This record gives sequence, C-alpha cells and structure tokens, in this order.
Amino acid sequence: MFFNIKELQYHAKPDCPDPVFARKLQEVLGGQFGEITVAMQYLFQGWNVRGDGKYKDLLMDTGTEELAHVEMLATMIARLLDNAPLATLEEAAKDPVINAILGGSNPQHAIVTGLGAAPSDSNGYPWNAKYTIASGNLLADFRHNLAAESQGRLQVARLYGMTNDRGVKDMLSWLLARDTMHQNQWIAAIKELEEKEGIVVPTTFPRELEKQEVSYVLFNFSRGDESATGRWAHGPSMDGHGVFQYVQHPQPLAAAPKLPPAPPYIYDTPPYALRNDNAGASLPPMV
Amino acid sequence: MFFNIKELQYHAKPDCPDPVFARKLQEVLGGQFGEITVAMQYLFQGWNVRGDGKYKDLLMDTGTEELAHVEMLATMIARLLDNAPLATLEEAAKDPVINAILGGSNPQHAIVTGLGAAPSDSNGYPWNAKYTIASGNLLADFRHNLAAESQGRLQVARLYGMTNDRGVKDMLSWLLARDTMHQNQWIAAIKELEEKEGIVVPTTFPRELEKQEVSYVLFNFSRGDESATGRWAHGPSMDGHGVFQYVQHPQPLAAAPKLPPAPPYIYDTPPYALRNDNAGASLPPMV
Amino acid sequence: MFFNIKELQYHAKPDCPDPVFARKLQEVLGGQFGEITVAMQYLFQGWNVRGDGKYKDLLMDTGTEELAHVEMLATMIARLLDNAPLATLEEAAKDPVINAILGGSNPQHAIVTGLGAAPSDSNGYPWNAKYTIASGNLLADFRHNLAAESQGRLQVARLYGMTNDRGVKDMLSWLLARDTMHQNQWIAAIKELEEKEGIVVPTTFPRELEKQEVSYVLFNFSRGDESATGRWAHGPSMDGHGVFQYVQHPQPLAAAPKLPPAPPYIYDTPPYALRNDNAGASLPPMV
Amino acid sequence: MFFNIKELQYHAKPDCPDPVFARKLQEVLGGQFGEITVAMQYLFQGWNVRGDGKYKDLLMDTGTEELAHVEMLATMIARLLDNAPLATLEEAAKDPVINAILGGSNPQHAIVTGLGAAPSDSNGYPWNAKYTIASGNLLADFRHNLAAESQGRLQVARLYGMTNDRGVKDMLSWLLARDTMHQNQWIAAIKELEEKEGIVVPTTFPRELEKQEVSYVLFNFSRGDESATGRWAHGPSMDGHGVFQYVQHPQPLAAAPKLPPAPPYIYDTPPYALRNDNAGASLPPMV
Amino acid sequence: MFFNIKELQYHAKPDCPDPVFARKLQEVLGGQFGEITVAMQYLFQGWNVRGDGKYKDLLMDTGTEELAHVEMLATMIARLLDNAPLATLEEAAKDPVINAILGGSNPQHAIVTGLGAAPSDSNGYPWNAKYTIASGNLLADFRHNLAAESQGRLQVARLYGMTNDRGVKDMLSWLLARDTMHQNQWIAAIKELEEKEGIVVPTTFPRELEKQEVSYVLFNFSRGDESATGRWAHGPSMDGHGVFQYVQHPQPLAAAPKLPPAPPYIYDTPPYALRNDNAGASLPPMV
Amino acid sequence: MFFNIKELQYHAKPDCPDPVFARKLQEVLGGQFGEITVAMQYLFQGWNVRGDGKYKDLLMDTGTEELAHVEMLATMIARLLDNAPLATLEEAAKDPVINAILGGSNPQHAIVTGLGAAPSDSNGYPWNAKYTIASGNLLADFRHNLAAESQGRLQVARLYGMTNDRGVKDMLSWLLARDTMHQNQWIAAIKELEEKEGIVVPTTFPRELEKQEVSYVLFNFSRGDESATGRWAHGPSMDGHGVFQYVQHPQPLAAAPKLPPAPPYIYDTPPYALRNDNAGASLPPMV
Repeated sequence: MFFNIKELQYHAKPDCPDPVFARKLQEVLGGQFGEITVAMQYLFQGWNVRGDGKYKDLLMDTGTEELAHVEMLATMIARLLDNAPLATLEEAAKDPVINAILGGSNPQHAIVTGLGAAPSDSNGYPWNAKYTIASGNLLADFRHNLAAESQGRLQVARLYGMTNDRGVKDMLSWLLARDTMHQNQWIAAIKELEEKEGIVVPTTFPRELEKQEVSYVLFNFSRGDESATGRWAHGPSMDGHGVFQYVQHPQPLAAAPKLPPAPPYIYDTPPYALRNDNAGASLPPMV
Repeated sequence: MFFNIKELQYHAKPDCPDPVFARKLQEVLGGQFGEITVAMQYLFQGWNVRGDGKYKDLLMDTGTEELAHVEMLATMIARLLDNAPLATLEEAAKDPVINAILGGSNPQHAIVTGLGAAPSDSNGYPWNAKYTIASGNLLADFRHNLAAESQGRLQVARLYGMTNDRGVKDMLSWLLARDTMHQNQWIAAIKELEEKEGIVVPTTFPRELEKQEVSYVLFNFSRGDESATGRWAHGPSMDGHGVFQYVQHPQPLAAAPKLPPAPPYIYDTPPYALRNDNAGASLPPMV
Repeated sequence: MFFNIKELQYHAKPDCPDPVFARKLQEVLGGQFGEITVAMQYLFQGWNVRGDGKYKDLLMDTGTEELAHVEMLATMIARLLDNAPLATLEEAAKDPVINAILGGSNPQHAIVTGLGAAPSDSNGYPWNAKYTIASGNLLADFRHNLAAESQGRLQVARLYGMTNDRGVKDMLSWLLARDTMHQNQWIAAIKELEEKEGIVVPTTFPRELEKQEVSYVLFNFSRGDESATGRWAHGPSMDGHGVFQYVQHPQPLAAAPKLPPAPPYIYDTPPYALRNDNAGASLPPMV
Repeated sequence: MFFNIKELQYHAKPDCPDPVFARKLQEVLGGQFGEITVAMQYLFQGWNVRGDGKYKDLLMDTGTEELAHVEMLATMIARLLDNAPLATLEEAAKDPVINAILGGSNPQHAIVTGLGAAPSDSNGYPWNAKYTIASGNLLADFRHNLAAESQGRLQVARLYGMTNDRGVKDMLSWLLARDTMHQNQWIAAIKELEEKEGIVVPTTFPRELEKQEVSYVLFNFSRGDESATGRWAHGPSMDGHGVFQYVQHPQPLAAAPKLPPAPPYIYDTPPYALRNDNAGASLPPMV
Repeated sequence: MFFNIKELQYHAKPDCPDPVFARKLQEVLGGQFGEITVAMQYLFQGWNVRGDGKYKDLLMDTGTEELAHVEMLATMIARLLDNAPLATLEEAAKDPVINAILGGSNPQHAIVTGLGAAPSDSNGYPWNAKYTIASGNLLADFRHNLAAESQGRLQVARLYGMTNDRGVKDMLSWLLARDTMHQNQWIAAIKELEEKEGIVVPTTFPRELEKQEVSYVLFNFSRGDESATGRWAHGPSMDGHGVFQYVQHPQPLAAAPKLPPAPPYIYDTPPYALRNDNAGASLPPMV
Repeated sequence: MFFNIKELQYHAKPDCPDPVFARKLQEVLGGQFGEITVAMQYLFQGWNVRGDGKYKDLLMDTGTEELAHVEMLATMIARLLDNAPLATLEEAAKDPVINAILGGSNPQHAIVTGLGAAPSDSNGYPWNAKYTIASGNLLADFRHNLAAESQGRLQVARLYGMTNDRGVKDMLSWLLARDTMHQNQWIAAIKELEEKEGIVVPTTFPRELEKQEVSYVLFNFSRGDESATGRWAHGPSMDGHGVFQYVQHPQPLAAAPKLPPAPPYIYDTPPYALRNDNAGASLPPMV
C-alpha cells in the first residue's frame, strides 16, 4: 500500500520557460530508460520476489523513490512550459522567429496536455511496459536494473550539457547523484548474489545439459582478428568453469535445411511452382 | 557487408511436430530478449562505436552469430509446425480433443505465416526496436548486453524443461552454451572497461557537478528496515568514492508545487472553477 | 513523494492455483482499463493540475490508492500461478489433458516472468501510456476517469462470474466496491464543475466562434429514423443554449476537393498518367 | 453497407500553405482523440449493440458522420502542404530561415505521404485501435464517447488559437460546433440510460456481492485533507444507495504477502540465495 | 461524405456458436491484412490523390465497400460468440473439457467487448495505421494494394478450411470472390499506369542520377548459385532499359568506416578506454 | 549462417554534418519501408520457403544485401551527426539561430544514441516486425516485396531532392540503383510464378468455392461513374476467367442484423434499457 505527500523529494523549478527543453526532458521521464521504467520495473520485481527480506525491501524502497522522480520531472516539465509562447495566439503565430524556435517543441504539450507533462519520450512515443522486466530471477533482473541506471544516468548527463538554466541543472544534479547510488547499490547486490550462486544466469541450470564444447568459444564471424586480442578469447573463463577459446574460421555443423511442402489447405506456393525447371512452367489443370 | 551460407550453425530438427511448443519458442526468437533483439542490438552498437578495434570486432562477431541463431529458431519453428493438425481440414475441425490441445497454439502460424516462423513473441506481439539500445557508451551498452543474455538464457532454460523432444532439447543445449559464452564475454569486457574508466556510467561526468550529498544514500521509502542490512547500506561504496549511508526517515526537500493557471487560449479548467469555495459556484458570465 | 508499506490494502489470496484465470486477471491489471491505467492517469492529472486544492488532493488520493490495487492484483496473479502445472517438467509435458487445459494460459507467465505478474493485458499486449490522458482541463479529464472506472468495473464484474474461487471472488468484491466509490466520486466532481463552468468542454471557448447553426443538429447519416425519436433530436439542448434539431437528409456544403499536382521533386504520380484519357497513354519522353 | 459522395460535409480550404500547422492538425485526425478514433469507436459500438433501435441508429449516424470529418481533415492537411517549401529542392535546402521554420514540420509529410495526410498524430505516432472501446454496455461506452468528444473539442479549441488562417479557422469552427452537438447528445443518452438502469456501471451486478463497507469511502492516501471538503466525502452518494465517508488514516487489511519459492525448473533465484544471512553465502555444490 | 444503410452487403450468419473460430476470424478483420487495413488504405489514398478521375473514384468505391466488409465480419464474430460457453458462470467454470476447448478463445471477447468484435487481430494485437500507406504515387500504392489483397485472400482461404460451419463458409466465399475482383482490378490499374509511365517507381526520377552500373546486377550474397538460373540474372531487364547481370563474388567498394570520437559532452566511451592496448588500462585522473 | 566484413558495400560519407538530414534519413533506415524492413522480410521469407532452389537463394541473396544497406545508412547517419552543434554545450544553447535550425533534428540522436543511428523512423517511431510478411506463399510475398521496393525507392528519391551534400547524394544514387534492380527482379519472379500458377492468390483455391457471381464485379459505392471508364469495369478479367462488370447501384443482400441480448453475466446494457419506449423508463427492481 502506498502513501503520498505532496512535497517534492527535491526542487524542480527552472529559472525560465523553455518548451524546447521540456520536450527533451520527456526522454528521462517517459522514455525507454526514463523514471517510469525504473519505477515500474522495481515495483513489479518487488511484488514478484518469491521469498522475502532485504532484496524485496531494497526493490520497494527504490521503486517507491522513483515515483518521486517521476513527480519531480512532471513538475519541472509543466514549469518549463509556463509562460512559454508555445501555444501562440494569432498574433504570435505571425512571428517567424518564435515559430522557428518552437519547431523543436512538442506540439502535444500545447494541444494534448495543456502545458503539462506526458508519459512519453522526447519524440512523443508513449511509454510501454516492454521497457521493463521482472523475471523472478533476481540476478538477471538486477543486471537489467544496473543497465537501466547506466543508460538513465548517461541520458541525464547529456541533458545537463544542453541547458544553462540553473534550476534545471540543480534538479539534474540530484538525479545524477541518485543514479550514482542506484548503480552502486545494484552492483553491490549483484556481487552478493554472484558470490552466493555463481555468475552465469540461471546458475542452477545443470551444466552438463548444455553443449559444453561451445560454452567458452568466441567464433570469429566478422573478418579481422581484433577480437582475438581481448580477455574473452583466452585464459580462464569468468565463471571459473572453462577456458576461453578463439575459433578463427567457424564452420556450420548442420546441413542447409529443406522444408517439405505444406499441406494443400495452407495454400502456400504449390510445389510445382517451386521447381527450378522452368520447362515445367505450363499451368496445371485448375480445379 | 554480409555473406550468408545456407548451412546452419547447429542442428534445428525436432523429433515430432508440436505446434504448441512452436508458439512458446517464438519467445526466444522474436520476444523482448529473443535472438532478433541481441542481433540488432550488437550490430547497431558495432556500427555506432566511435573508435575501432577489439570492441567493435567483438560486437560484429557476436551480432553476426545471433543472425545464425535467428535462422536456427526460424527453421525449428517451421519444422515443429510440419505435419501438425494445426490448420485442420473440415474433418479435423470436428475433433474436440485436437481442438483443445490446439488451443495453446498460435493461430497466426496457420493463418498468417503458412506454417512458418514469425518475428513475434509467444503471444504474437511483434518484435520492435525499443528492445534494443546502442548509446555510444560501451560500458552502458555492455551492461545491457549482459542483462539481455541473462534474461535470454533464463528463458531458454525454462523452455528446456517444457518439452521432451530430443531434437528441440539438443538445439536448446546449443543456445544455452552460447549464452554461457556471451555472458562470460560481456562480463570480461565490462571488467576491462571498468578497470580502465571506473564504474559509474558515464564515468567522465564531473563528480562535483552531481549532488554528492546523496550519491551514496539509501532512502528507506518502504516500511521495514530489511534493506538496511545489505551491503549497499554501509561500508565503502562500490565505486570507492564514498561511504554508503542509510536514511530511515527520508524527508522531502522541496515544497509542494503549485502551478499557475495556464493562459486562456489553452482552455484548461478556468481558475474560478478550481477555487475550493463552492460558494462561488455560480456560473460566470459567458462570452 | 511516496511511501510504501508492504501490507496489502485488502486480501489477495486464492483458494487454488489457476493459471488460466491468472491470464484473464491480467486484463484488469495491465489492460486498457486496468489498474495501471487509472493509477498513472490520476497521478499525471494531479501533477498537471494548474491550481491546487481539493481536486488535486482527490486525484493524488485516488491515484495512490490505485497503486495499491496494482499491488494486490500482482500478488493475486503470482499466487494463482503457484503450484500450477504451468511450466511442466518433461513428464507433465506428456499429459494431453493438462496440456489442453493449459492452452488457455499465458506462456509468458512461465517463460518470461517466472510465475509472476506482468504489466500486460490478458493477451500479453504490454500496457502503454496512450491509455491515459491528463489534459489540464479537469472536466474533460474527470469524464475520462468516469468512463475508465465504468469500463473497469464492468470488466471486474465479468471476471467475477468466470471463477468459483472464493479467495479470488473476495478480492474482486473489494475492487467492485472501490470502483463503485470511484464512479460516485467522479460523478460528484463532474457535477460540481458543470455547475461552476457549464457542460460543453472547453466551457470557456467563445460560443460565437463556433458554427452555431450546427451546434444542436443531429444529421441522419444512417438510413432509418429511429434516432429521431431520442431526446437528442428534439427539445432544448442539454447545455441550455439551443434546441435540438433533426436533419433527415443531410447535404454536403462543399464541393468535391481537387488537389493540384505535387511538384516534380515529390515524385507523385505524374499528371499525364493521371489523365483519364487512355488515348494519351503513350509513354512520355523520359529524362 | 456504406455509400460515399465525394462532396465534403463542409469546407476544408486554407488561405495559405502551412506545413507546420499541417503537422499539428494531424493530432485531431489520427491522434488519441482524433476523428478516426470516434469514427471507429461509434461504428464498432453500433455493430456490437445487442438489441436494436434508437441507440444503434444514433451510433451509426454519428460514426458515419465522423468518417466525413476524417475526410475533411485529410483534405485540409493535403492543402496546407500544397506549395509549401516542405520538400525543398537543393536550392531551398540552403536557406537557413526556411529550414528553421520547417523544423516544426513532419518530415513524413514529404518523404512518406507525398504531401498527403497520414493516419497518425502530431508526432507521427500511428493511430491504433486501443484508443477505442466497444464493450457492449452502452452506458459505459457513452461515457467514453462523452469523454472523447470533450478531449477532442478541447484540442480543436487549442488549435483554433494557433493559426490565423481564415480558411482553417472556418473549418475548425465547424468541428467545434459538431463536437458541441456530440457532447450534448451523449449527455442526453447517458441521462436517459441512467434514469432507466441506474448510474454505477454495470448497474445489474448484484450489490450484495460487492464489499459494501467500502463502496462509498474516500481513503486519504495523499497527505492533507483538502479532498475531505468535496461533495464526494460527505452526504448521500450520487447513486442514492449510500453515504459518503472520509477515512483520514487508511489502514491495510491484509498482511504483507510472502510468495513461496518457485519450483526448480522455473530457475528463479534459488532459495538459498534469497536468505538474508550472508553467513550462508558460500556457494552450494553445483550440479 | 458517407451514408450508411444498416442492411449488410452479404449474409454474415453462422450455423453455430464457435468462440474459438471467432478469435481466428479477427485476423481478417483487424489484422495486418484485414479489412480495416484495406478500408483505411484505399480511403486515404483516395483523399490524397492529386488529380481526379477514375483512379480516385475506384479508390473511393473500393474503400467504401471494405467498410461494408468490416461490418460483415464484426457481425459474424458477434454471432459466433452468441450462446457460447465463453464467459461461463461459476458452474461452467468447473468443467475441464469446456475450459480446455475455450483455451483457444480470446479472453477479451468476454472481458472487454462483451461478446462483440474488436478491432484487433487473432492474438489480440490492436490494428494500427502503419499497416497502410498512401504515398501520393499511385503505381507504388496500387502495388501495395495488390499485395494486401493477395495476403488477405490467402488468409481467408486458410480460414475457409478451418471450419465446417456452412454459414461461415458462405460469408467467406463472398470475401474470396471480392478479393478475386480486387486483385484483378489492381492488376488492371497497375498495368495501365505502367503502360503510361514505366515500371520502376518513381518513374520520373532521372535515370542518370542513379548509379546505373548496378541497376541491373544481382549480387550473390548467399553461397550457392541457384539464383543465377533465374530470369532476373540474365537477359534484358524487365523495364527494358538494361541487361541483367550476375556477380558471383561481390566486393565491397568502400573502406571499413572509422567514426571519430564524440565530443566530451556526449559522454560516449572515452577514447582512452577504447584503445586496444591494455597496458594503458590505468585509470586516468578523474575530474 | 552469416559472415560479416567490415568494409562497406558502397561509400557512406557526407561532405558536411547535417543533423536535420540525419533525422530524415532515418526514414529509409528504420521506417515502414526502410532497409530493416526489407532485410528482415526477405530473410524470413527465405527461411520459411517450403522447398528449395532459386527463389530461396534469391531471397537470401537480397536479404543479406539489405543488411549491408542498413550498415551503410547507420554509418552515414552517424557521420551526419559528427561535429554537429546537436548536443550543445551551455554556450551554444544560447544561440537562437542554432537552436531554431536544430528544431528539426531528432533529440534522441543526442540524448539516447550519443550521435549514432537508431532503428527508428524519421519521427523516432521504432521499427517493428508488423512491417513485414512471410506468408509461405511466394507470389503473395513477392508482390509485397515489389510494393516495398517501390515505396522505398520513392522515399529515397524524395530524400535525394532534399539535400545538396554530394556525399549523401552519391550514396542515395547507389540505393536508387539497387532499388531499380530489386523492383526488376521481383517483377521477373512474379511474372514467372504467374505463368506457372496463375494470378489470383492463392491460385490453388478451388474457384467453385468462391461466390463467383461477384468475382469480377465493380460495385459503385462512391457517387459518380468515373471508375466505370477503367479497364477494370469492362472486358475480360485479368486472370482470364471472367468478364468485368460494373454495378451502378449496388444493393445489400442481407437484412440488417439484430443481435440477441447477451447473457446476464456479461453485464451488457440490460434489455429493458435498450427498449425504445421511454415510457418503460421506470427503474426495475434491483437485486
């Protein structure tokens, strides 16, 4: 169960209106690696944890915090749209300079949300749940969390350089710090789980059931051997169970497949039309 | 530039038809963490690498191999649909038992693809490019790759237990082994990059520009202190730049936001209607 | 800012496993009118309110409660998947009866989420943000809220009849009651706003700027005059500003449009090829 | 069955080209609440009505009219793109001012549709059927219709202020008037149905099967009691069956859920790795 | 402008209920090549025709007819759901046989549409406008129309074999015949346009601006020379402007690209971390 | 199985940075008819061919070549973003002219991909697999291929006129030539198959099972008889099996459908509320 207080976790107040930056900021609100993604991802992971304890609590702590970040970004975007010449009256519509600058804004901020934030990315693409995963396997999921926080902090860092509004930068500095923590915490949790259970997810799948001959082999499918010089091509494997090998000329192990014709009621290309011999190209008697 | 040979990297031949399993197998072909995802993700990362050398080569090697896995899965699915009572003639349509079993098959395998594989997941949801990322920051991207391979191997392991067809299991054992390698290789590459540049992505963002007071703080937003017992709540941070702290009662740092009214031409709720006082509920003079 | 407690708002415990019903229940969790929709919709409306007071508080109260409903449904679905023969071992895979029944389950519950809930609907289609609206105009939005609660309660009522599990029914009876409240509350809020500002959204758009001749006219575009007998076809209009009229034979008011040719660099069909006269069909001199 | 005449219901002719406004106008053609949405929604509701008579006729009348609005908007957009420097020849491409202004146009209007309208919104997001509902319950659906017409008219009103083209404004004044009618007619139909069957959808669900203790309760989940001052927090409920109550400190009614471990073949996090005690962190014997 | 009559173009009445077939039939209503696709595609092509005359009229004729097919399919699906044990009462929920058969039905037909059709495909994926194209170039578009009618008739033919309901078969025989006509008509229109303007779309692009050396070359990128035996590999090209050639060993014409580093504010992988030499792996001084 | 070489099939090097054109170029990389579409479509068609020989080889040849085009476009886009003032430092953010021009760029090129290409279209909409088809029926699929190549070349031709960068034009001239070949080759393959099996897909469906009375009839559903003058309205049908007819006044052949009420547990509108007679509007006794 959740409670809300209307105070914000941190300030979300720009110095000036900037509808073009409001559009860009949508990326870290409703984009692939935005705050809605991590909020939903952590909450579903928390609810799906089979077992209880510190991991579930960590997920619920962090997922709940991310809701506060969604709130801060939504507030900031609404304020960046305040007093902006975004949805111009007729007079403003005549000014080519304003119109040109507004070319970079999101028309839906005026037409659809009435100067409010939207749960979409910087191109107006709506957030969807396939950005998230809650697999029930925490090591797999925490790696996804670390990846999401890495992409997320990267995007915030890029946005930081695209504005000179002190209020916006101040809020972004908060998000950057929180992403620093979140990367650190998922690394800590991953390390702990790897020490407990191993590193190749799922760690409990019986190794003898996989085709172990190729479990530590790098196949060279792109011409040039630069990849042979990496750590992944020689020495003991990272999971400690094998030795990396490099195969310069990978060979196929199975013949080219030939699929039999489909039954007639599927109406695929009829077999006689697939025969290579054009000599047989006379049309068969139709039904 | 690419070349194809029609031989398969490994066998993809089931013992028996099984249209219900064909549907399930679509998940690791065209789902969120299926082979199309990793193929496209690695190729785009490779093309977007700014610089050259072993990382780019590794990405192109692996992305190109994943195309071969897409091919194997497409072949396997087509064969699982061979000779299946999937698209029954009228007579077959009368048999309730067959119909019941076929309830778990994907109707599009008969209607749309004519007994072929589709680039969709096990629920018929089409693959889309938002499953992938190529950010230009390799540490961020390799973490995403590791996460994708972890989820992918997890799904293949689950599928392994859902069939007793030796041909299918044989192919899955190949995919499991390759995913073992791919997890190992991304871990190796991540370790190398972390040693070179640090661990908090992006590593080059100036630390003094983030709000460092909260860079190593775990806020307790979910009642109960289990998360305080984790490694992430005490001791030096994983990046070596701070000390983890636990805040039991997080406080908001900013006042509840109040947004001013929108200008009239936005046609938001008019200010007089937002006033709490119902006394003023008499309708204002209309234009 | 948000806080979570791990206790549930209400019980979410089925008597028995039922993976087929777990799939169906996804509809009201992650479907078009599921709990994620109303949670996200009310929160964004709350954040975008321009002004403060009871409407914003009501939105935040209700949006925050809906998060608790997401939590209950996620928990219920995970429990319905417990002990189910969903992801059968090889042995179970041989039983046609079990397989047949499982035809109605969602394969992603086993393959993707590992017996957990997903933020998708009953066909595995992921939740997306276009299910929601936060327009800044509360009367428009509250009508959407009422519509969503009406569809939502309808779906829960239908699900209620599809199970005989007492635990599931108990939880659904809670959701039905809450939806009763939410329909009542939005009706109350709508009524209040309509009394304050009028009923045709947006109420502040100057009426003389619309084409008032057709503001209260029902055009008969479908043969038969049954619709002429409704309240909407005669008597004073609901907004009190006009009188409903019925036009039996609507006429077009503008000529059929003829668009001029596009410029050559658009490479639309060349004008000479569009001419009706086939006589001119000789190929023009190519560039 | 349908018939088309090529004349337009109303004029759709701008005074001047304006590719930037053409992009914006797409919102009310192919957006979430655009004309395609209402056309498809009313037609499907009409086809799904179980019973006949005036409601079905009203739906078919209105859905068929909306097709005419799709046609008008498509025509207007094509004309706004006529003679525009949208898809510039090489020479025009050199002019930074034109380029800047064109920044706000939709590149697909030149590249994809060849100066024609597209069934997408103002950000190029394609129309999809999840914008619509036809539930079989007319009261639920008519409320959705009223909501859609409210959002739609709001968006048209906003667009009206963003242009000073008299031809465009003339067409928008027509759409505004028709949306006035459509809001009025759905209100009339809703009122009639509510008088016949009650107001809480579905009205036929037995009230004693819902958890009536909470059917009229407002839970205060967001700190602050402003919402307690609303009509929804005291007095008789809108449906006449209860009395609104306000609960200042809502309490959870069910314990925090603990989900049991998944079976081994699901490969979730193994139970020993979930135990809080780090002492047990030694790796178990692997298979 | 459009008119509707409520009579159907042709019968749409099944002999018996069949909710499983109702799900399958959705494919040709709301799927990729279903009737909504062709209706919307032809209407938008018609509205976007720049010029007037028989092509526009043909598009409007056919697009308007397709609306009637949407109507027929919606009606048929609703009737297939009548009297079906789809949304069973509690008692029915106990019968495993019925449940098993219903595994193949679409749960949204009961939960969401209340025994009505939905604008989605046979897996519940909603129709979206990216299935369609209206490019302004009629030859390009008519080819797409022919392709869509070919896929559409193929799907209807497959469905014909999956049922033994005479009423359903009767309606499908109508759709098959209409698709025969529509394939014939687009072939006729394509032939006419090709005779007028040529066959390589766009026909008006100056040939000397393309890289004519490779305009008629088949590159052998997949090992094996079977494709060299086709008509496309020798003899005059189909457009009459060249001669087909076969290149057995295609060579790249451009060097492997090396992208320069991104500027620092993009926070891509820093150049020192991309250097192959691991010797330089000591962490640089951080800011 | 696939191999990659890092050299490009053809040059992909612009003369100058141009982030606005980079956005536009995304259309033919990741749009509806971009290179990803044809690559995936041809490969899946190749894998699903039931039978072997020259058609499969042609598909694999061409699909593999398209991967090289994806590579060229990704490279070109990354280079167009090099040295562009896209992601400006604070100073650059102050320049309104630069900002205005950048209004037309894709913000995700800076924020998400770090100056790299994305698998999306020119509006940032991600590529998805529903752009493709592999039906198992080659004649149907080759028609779709021809349509895709026609739209694709049309889009490239339009882009050619929107830039004056010689490097970009050089690469586009390559793509235009290859699309010329691909249109030619699919036309050749279609012609061959039509000669072998006939032209109405699927050609093997028994003609007597379709409603042959309407197999060659053009119904006039849009007022005006221009379409009667086309080849499709008179003379022998293109498939040689019938004679085109024109029906000026099409009549419905089936009565208006009336659907019976749904069972009570579906909670559709109750029958008494659907009755036209308002006299009966008194509320029935509730349960």
